[in-house]
Amino acid sequence: LDYQHVQVPFEITLWIMLASLAKIAFHLYNKLPSVVPESCLLIFVGLIMGGIIYGLNDKSPPVMDSDIFFLYLLPPIVLDAGYFMPSRPFFENIGTILLYAVVGTIWNVFGIGFSLYGICQVRAFGLRDVSLLHNLLFGSLIAAVDPVAVLAVFEEIHVNEKLHILVFGESLLNDAVTVVLYKLFRSFCEMPAIKTMDVFAGVGKFFVVGIGGVLVGLTFGMTAAFTTRFTKDIRVIEPLFVFLYSYLSYLTAEMFHLSGIVAIIACAMGMKRYVEANISLKSHTTVKYFMKMWSSVSDTLIFIFLGVSTIGENHEWNWPYIFFTVIFCLIWRALGVLVLTFFVNRFHINTVTSKDQFIIAYGGLRGAICFSLVFLLPDFRRKKLFIAATTVVILFTVFAQGMTIRPLVDLLHVKRKRESAPTVGEQIHIRFLDHLLAGIEDISGHWGQYYWKDKLEYFNSKYLQKFLLREYDQPKSSIVLLYEKLERKHAIELAEAGQLGHAPSHPSLLCSVFLCSHNDRTVITEKKSEDALHPDGLEDIQEILARNLYRIRRTGPAYSRHTLPGETEPVEQAQEILILQRRSL
Amino acid sequence: LDYQHVQVPFEITLWIMLASLAKIAFHLYNKLPSVVPESCLLIFVGLIMGGIIYGLNDKSPPVMDSDIFFLYLLPPIVLDAGYFMPSRPFFENIGTILLYAVVGTIWNVFGIGFSLYGICQVRAFGLRDVSLLHNLLFGSLIAAVDPVAVLAVFEEIHVNEKLHILVFGESLLNDAVTVVLYKLFRSFCEMPAIKTMDVFAGVGKFFVVGIGGVLVGLTFGMTAAFTTRFTKDIRVIEPLFVFLYSYLSYLTAEMFHLSGIVAIIACAMGMKRYVEANISLKSHTTVKYFMKMWSSVSDTLIFIFLGVSTIGENHEWNWPYIFFTVIFCLIWRALGVLVLTFFVNRFHINTVTSKDQFIIAYGGLRGAICFSLVFLLPDFRRKKLFIAATTVVILFTVFAQGMTIRPLVDLLHVKRKRESAPTVGEQIHIRFLDHLLAGIEDISGHWGQYYWKDKLEYFNSKYLQKFLLREYDQPKSSIVLLYEKLERKHAIELAEAGQLGHAPSHPSLLCSVFLCSHNDRTVITEKKSEDALHPDGLEDIQEILARNLYRIRRTGPAYSRHTLPGETEPVEQAQEILILQRRSL
Repeated sequence: LDYQHVQVPFEITLWIMLASLAKIAFHLYNKLPSVVPESCLLIFVGLIMGGIIYGLNDKSPPVMDSDIFFLYLLPPIVLDAGYFMPSRPFFENIGTILLYAVVGTIWNVFGIGFSLYGICQVRAFGLRDVSLLHNLLFGSLIAAVDPVAVLAVFEEIHVNEKLHILVFGESLLNDAVTVVLYKLFRSFCEMPAIKTMDVFAGVGKFFVVGIGGVLVGLTFGMTAAFTTRFTKDIRVIEPLFVFLYSYLSYLTAEMFHLSGIVAIIACAMGMKRYVEANISLKSHTTVKYFMKMWSSVSDTLIFIFLGVSTIGENHEWNWPYIFFTVIFCLIWRALGVLVLTFFVNRFHINTVTSKDQFIIAYGGLRGAICFSLVFLLPDFRRKKLFIAATTVVILFTVFAQGMTIRPLVDLLHVKRKRESAPTVGEQIHIRFLDHLLAGIEDISGHWGQYYWKDKLEYFNSKYLQKFLLREYDQPKSSIVLLYEKLERKHAIELAEAGQLGHAPSHPSLLCSVFLCSHNDRTVITEKKSEDALHPDGLEDIQEILARNLYRIRRTGPAYSRHTLPGETEPVEQAQEILILQRRSL
Repeated sequence: LDYQHVQVPFEITLWIMLASLAKIAFHLYNKLPSVVPESCLLIFVGLIMGGIIYGLNDKSPPVMDSDIFFLYLLPPIVLDAGYFMPSRPFFENIGTILLYAVVGTIWNVFGIGFSLYGICQVRAFGLRDVSLLHNLLFGSLIAAVDPVAVLAVFEEIHVNEKLHILVFGESLLNDAVTVVLYKLFRSFCEMPAIKTMDVFAGVGKFFVVGIGGVLVGLTFGMTAAFTTRFTKDIRVIEPLFVFLYSYLSYLTAEMFHLSGIVAIIACAMGMKRYVEANISLKSHTTVKYFMKMWSSVSDTLIFIFLGVSTIGENHEWNWPYIFFTVIFCLIWRALGVLVLTFFVNRFHINTVTSKDQFIIAYGGLRGAICFSLVFLLPDFRRKKLFIAATTVVILFTVFAQGMTIRPLVDLLHVKRKRESAPTVGEQIHIRFLDHLLAGIEDISGHWGQYYWKDKLEYFNSKYLQKFLLREYDQPKSSIVLLYEKLERKHAIELAEAGQLGHAPSHPSLLCSVFLCSHNDRTVITEKKSEDALHPDGLEDIQEILARNLYRIRRTGPAYSRHTLPGETEPVEQAQEILILQRRSL
């Protein structure tokens, strides 16, 4: 037996295997995941594992290594989040998200830090040696809402898209602020005296870290898109580039002390549309599938390790401090959301309702990022107290808030995600309105989001696409691409239902709609063509639209870690087509 | 700048990136890969890289770590090889392959070892201190034909399937023999005296290592198949299990000093059919794609590292020894193939022709396995000589033989791979013959391969499938599955060509063929059914078959690392369908 030799890969494989098997086990009992979020169950598994290890070895089980977390476990989740980010709601609410992420996080850090310092002044608690700076440092790591925990809970409760993107976007973008404040306070702790200059330098760093991350990410994203121009003869390594470049963007940003999370999100969002156009359909399936798979496994491992690391003797249980930490986390977040939303609502027509505000405040879950940061703290007398407080806050938010948020959403009748995704008709309408509003903004001289979106779109089609896309000579509208995708899916379902010959499909639909000419299928085969749009043709088109754009004509823009868009209920949909086709025959 | 922190993942990512970009660069110039095998180009890139590193640092560049090679780079390639192994030709020729792999390798080891010992006796060469045991040890590592190198060359020259599987199968299965002999001689080198017992124990170990590997592999393969029974609700992690279990089988085998290569091949071949039936279509695409991608990248990295490691000061250039090593490798392999094939041909009707024998002997390429084994040798005085000789043999076989084998294949008019894959008709025929021959063997009492195949098939359908497949209630013939696959592909192509409505496809074809009843499409929709098979119906079926089983009805059984089956020329095929359909309209 030569275990030493294979130990490292063997143990890694076994951990991943355990995580995957745990996932399968939960999904075998369908009732369990609908009551308790998966994250709680996984932490529970981790606690049991940790208990077993502790019991057998009689020493604390290994804690999650911060390096492993930041270098290997976090990037897949963030990449997945960035790649599947619904870009429209994200950019529509970017102002609000940034306000929550930057101002909100700073508010929380200082709020929690100063109030805890106040608690430390109470002689009875025996905490007088914890300085203000240490409290602020602790505040900076405990204030950050965790994207992994937020995703794990929010993708199960299906709130409306705007609310989802506000919480989720905040949790992703606050990384830049957390990194800066955490490093700032940590270096202040080690400095003998703090000058005013240092504070201003710290403020300046926000912009460097955030914008630097975006720039690094976009650079790598564009390089990735450019590289996939040349992979036509060697399709099998296409998916690799998506992963390699995004990972490099993360590592490069981390190397220069920029925000890796922001970089990888910028990279994924930047490259997505170009890469998708360049690579083959199978490569794209592989990219999507592997991203989901990796992020799902990483996420599972993180929660299991969180559970394992909780067990042991790393904690100093000073209950007043821990209790007030939980309370202040809740209070300052609630206050922050109230105040910030008040300002946001003054400038927006589509306001954030008070129910939404409650869910935003309540959904501020803490997770593995706080946990890793607290272990990265330099050794000092009260480190174990901070570890204990962080552990309790994480467990409280994940268990208490995570498990009650679903009943609360039901109770408050929070607006849910619309069940049906926008139809092709709606999408055309939205695009039309975008153009119209861009024109209005241009005329009125108010340069809002539509104006900038239009400019970006122009720049994209004028320069970027030529440079980054392989087949630029045939630029396809996203609606044409969508139609092609749907048609392909439709064909597969027909083939699987054994009904290929029956399909009353209309390949010329696109011509009819976009060229506004009456080219029905039968007309094409008879090699005739009429240029005028006469009433019969219109009726024909409307009938085709009514039949073809029925429920199957959907896209799935909503984000979920565990399913790929368009994966749900193929059987039901196929049956629907069959019924439809029977009727039309 | 904090490079230390991200160094490990950053450098790994950069190496993979370099490998991928090198691959793209070669494929951009279409002429180059058709003359020089990719493996040679990659070694060349490695030599340049090594030269640069050597020039800049003024010390030898890092050699490929044997652990990295055996634990991380080799498994993906072997997994890919095992998973896509054409099982029919493999099992039809298993006897011949085993003969070449076991007896042939032993023959080569002892032949090369003893002849080199003879050379060492020549006083003028100054090699009298190299003992017989050291020569045999060297023989055991240099005799093994390398699967990576063989694949890289043979998948580009498209020889006939039997010849391909003979060389490729031998290169995979000789791992068990190499492992045993290498470890045996290495321990003999360290032992003060060798007893007869030890020699017999060594012989016994062959069987333990080989059969043990098969058992470990099959165990993990069956567990993998069983696990995928329960992944219905969580499709995204399905591909993971394929990779995790095969990797675990490899590591477990290595841990117990069994043959990891044999284990992973047994695991992949064992689980393939069950896993494919259990997992979703998208998961399967991902599995196939990722396997190809990983093996392709591993392969690229191996050849680049081979080149890099060649540069440096690890070599002792004793030219007579090196020269005779190359000569003896060639001679003993040629002799071995001649003698063994003589015996093989006496027992087979379908003989190995003399041209095939030449290609088998000439295709015995050495590669990274030899290279890693020679670096794993314990330190002794002549290690650098062995390293030099191994390097030269590898470079000679990869460059000289690898580059000339294609012209030789052309020159000798070696039988090529058939261009068109078997049609459905042929496949039915083959299956029918299998049953017939199994029956004949059963009656005649000659228990040959057909008898055992039939028994295995019976055991499979009676016990294994029930246990390992999720939807056992609907067991599907492989021909039905093939038809479904083709129908799906067909549908996609039609949809992509915008011709979905035109397709004269016949979903009831299968019923017609298998139930032998006349259920044409129009008949089904009219809810009529006739039980008798009347002449009109037969004609109808024949016409449908002729139209539907035309060239598009293909499967691609041949092995290639860079393409997935069915990926070639979709445009051409779609055009064909269109032409066909025009005609039928």
